[in-house]
Amino acid sequence: MESLDAERCVACHADSPRATRDEIETLKPQIPLWKIETGNNVPTLERVFKIRKYTSALSFTQNIGEFANEEGHHPKIVIEWGKVTVSWWTHAINDLHRNDFIMAAKTDRLFEKTSS
Amino acid sequence: MESLDAERCVACHADSPRATRDEIETLKPQIPLWKIETGNNVPTLERVFKIRKYTSALSFTQNIGEFANEEGHHPKIVIEWGKVTVSWWTHAINDLHRNDFIMAAKTDRLFEKTSS
Repeated sequence: MESLDAERCVACHADSPRATRDEIETLKPQIPLWKIETGNNVPTLERVFKIRKYTSALSFTQNIGEFANEEGHHPKIVIEWGKVTVSWWTHAINDLHRNDFIMAAKTDRLFEKTSS
Repeated sequence: MESLDAERCVACHADSPRATRDEIETLKPQIPLWKIETGNNVPTLERVFKIRKYTSALSFTQNIGEFANEEGHHPKIVIEWGKVTVSWWTHAINDLHRNDFIMAAKTDRLFEKTSS
């Protein structure tokens, strides 16, 4: 099975398929440090990255933003002292799509390259 | 009167003076587009910057982060598609300090240089 972080996002529209329960059960173990949050009635994949150096938090954010823009899929990123919180969901369907799991896995890879 | 954005932050400690009501009444009109939010029982200065270009949102965030780090005073920055939300408050006192008004004014100046 190809790992999630090697996949590319597909274009998403309002009628794109939401991630099914079966799909979530398969994909979620590949991004074990992410939680599914359901605040505001929209499920999102969320992970808090603890980063001691503020300049590293900034460059991590910049790197996420750049690849998000390349994929045309934009997360919510919250930068605070000591941590960066990233949330992925698919705006077009107000739900989770396979794309979000791919982007979460890619975010994990970016974090591995970030000096904390 | 020297404009707020020309001032530098002073170092803050747990016993630093909170902004008084009189001080807030003097300073707030200098940053008219900021709101005082009191969620989580900590007052913060918050402004939502609408930015159409995602790459501009990223560079705006980077610029805020860099000057924040120089001043040793770190805001909460939330980047989403189409907007960047910035919140200033003083962690050491869990309240507003004159520093926060200075940083808000400086953030406004940075935004003026950002292409939206």
